[in-house]
Amino acid sequence: MAALVNRQILLKSRPVGAPGLGNFELVQRPAPEPGDGEVLMRTRYLSLDPYMRGRMSAAKSYAKPVEVGEPMVGGTVSEIIASRNANFAVGDIVLGFGGWQDYALSGGAGLRKLDPAAAPVTTALGILGMPGMTAYVGLLEIGQPSSGETVAVAAASGAVGSVVGQIAKIKGCRAVGVAGGPEKCRYVVEQLGFDACVDHRADDFVRQLEAACPAGIDVYFENVGGAVQQAVWPLLNDFARIPVCGLIAQYNATTPMAGPDMFSVLRKRLTLRGFIVSDFAAKQADFLRDAGAWVRSGRLKYREDVIDGLENAPAAFLGLLQGKNFGKLLVKVS
Amino acid sequence: MAALVNRQILLKSRPVGAPGLGNFELVQRPAPEPGDGEVLMRTRYLSLDPYMRGRMSAAKSYAKPVEVGEPMVGGTVSEIIASRNANFAVGDIVLGFGGWQDYALSGGAGLRKLDPAAAPVTTALGILGMPGMTAYVGLLEIGQPSSGETVAVAAASGAVGSVVGQIAKIKGCRAVGVAGGPEKCRYVVEQLGFDACVDHRADDFVRQLEAACPAGIDVYFENVGGAVQQAVWPLLNDFARIPVCGLIAQYNATTPMAGPDMFSVLRKRLTLRGFIVSDFAAKQADFLRDAGAWVRSGRLKYREDVIDGLENAPAAFLGLLQGKNFGKLLVKVS
Repeated sequence: MAALVNRQILLKSRPVGAPGLGNFELVQRPAPEPGDGEVLMRTRYLSLDPYMRGRMSAAKSYAKPVEVGEPMVGGTVSEIIASRNANFAVGDIVLGFGGWQDYALSGGAGLRKLDPAAAPVTTALGILGMPGMTAYVGLLEIGQPSSGETVAVAAASGAVGSVVGQIAKIKGCRAVGVAGGPEKCRYVVEQLGFDACVDHRADDFVRQLEAACPAGIDVYFENVGGAVQQAVWPLLNDFARIPVCGLIAQYNATTPMAGPDMFSVLRKRLTLRGFIVSDFAAKQADFLRDAGAWVRSGRLKYREDVIDGLENAPAAFLGLLQGKNFGKLLVKVS
Repeated sequence: MAALVNRQILLKSRPVGAPGLGNFELVQRPAPEPGDGEVLMRTRYLSLDPYMRGRMSAAKSYAKPVEVGEPMVGGTVSEIIASRNANFAVGDIVLGFGGWQDYALSGGAGLRKLDPAAAPVTTALGILGMPGMTAYVGLLEIGQPSSGETVAVAAASGAVGSVVGQIAKIKGCRAVGVAGGPEKCRYVVEQLGFDACVDHRADDFVRQLEAACPAGIDVYFENVGGAVQQAVWPLLNDFARIPVCGLIAQYNATTPMAGPDMFSVLRKRLTLRGFIVSDFAAKQADFLRDAGAWVRSGRLKYREDVIDGLENAPAAFLGLLQGKNFGKLLVKVS
């Protein structure tokens, strides 16, 4: 095979506060050759997700940080273009973790073959992938919503929030979203079927949220923190559950933001529980069965925001941290 | 019956910050007469517990506040001295909720007859009562400790903390207490059998706590908040559970204290859950069976700090908020 040029986007430096384009560097290197048991994958789609902000920092977390000078990590849908692994053939489309680059090697562990006839392959990075499953396990395993309860979720038009609210509706709950701007809010109500969606940029956001939750909030799916958390807190009912999935509004904070008043945890007997999707790997078959059926029947809708070109990934990612995407953010790489 | 004089301790005014003796008032009134279906109880022992601080405030909580001018509420062991209720006879000793006074009426609901031959009647207010059951359900139902894990608890010589650590030991855990002063710490280790107990007044408290928890902390039974919480937080292991039972170090705060950093909740996948013992009323039979057996076999030890005279209840209660008691605080009323 002629030497292929592999464009890689490296972490050039660790951000202090909000990351900028200068924290990334695009380099070109020869694509690697697969060794025995390995496959070479060409990236079709790269998923951009908020958790990647954490990987840019050296702070101790559930996953080790990306090293400075190394390619950014990320989930990918890729095509096998060379195989020395009996389980994969050239032409197979796989879900993997190829990162921000054109080509990646894999030993096969963690790759999942996708059937393009069964569902658009991009769904494996969104509604039928990590974000969808994050919503599913966080809401159902931790949030444990009962019919008639109110479920609130921020970033409601996003890859996770949109699924949280739709599953809440499937379970008979009132779904209240929070999103940035009237266009997203309209989409959340009119297309996704939430009962209400409040624009957190509105001057009277707090009052609007209160009006949207006349019976309080029983489950608050936490993926933003910050001002939305502060607005939600007084509305929480006794015994409310708060799956803590993300804190995107706080990711760029240079000093820790104080958590919510512990008295309300005590007095209202709240349950807060942090999680990451891999804690619930045993639920994957359930998720794929349920979410697959809901997508096929039209009960679970999704929207993708596809950026063209690997070179545009850094800017798209910075926009994601500011809520500029509208739907699951993907980069079409090839 | 000749008119009995009923001394009552009223809430005279709501405290701002730390309560003082001036927030209470002792008055003398004629004891009430039992109506049809009622009993008149003479208080033998009054229980003093941290939750009473909450009842002095008008803030919304899980129980309504004591009204200004009304007697302070509280659990009591009492003797029936007049009965117009077929379920109770004069001379019966009952666990009830008579409050800070010599005499109280009851319609019988919520009264539980005690057998003085089975256990000292004071235990119904402590090790075999509300504080013991608080420890039992909070640790076992929310903390869910596994053998070999480390359980940390503050106020470790107190009515709840002492039971938390001893049950942790029964369950095969490492029990680490925090208490105020070397005498209490010695008692916690030498008499109660905790593996370690750290004096939160020591200059190097944080370092000592760290040394006492070489494998981190898997369950932190939260009943104090404040500086102990701040010292514990960095030691929490991934997937640690935090039953939130009380925040005595913060009860007198005039502004809400910020809660712990939410990033650690997310990154370590912590579970925080507030509770009050009555949320687990269905576990009472299990508690009485297990705790009764452990007390009889000597596996569960307890210590009572008995103050003589109803008139001394306010000062004793103020001391409780400052950690001056040593063991379950009771007032011998008659």
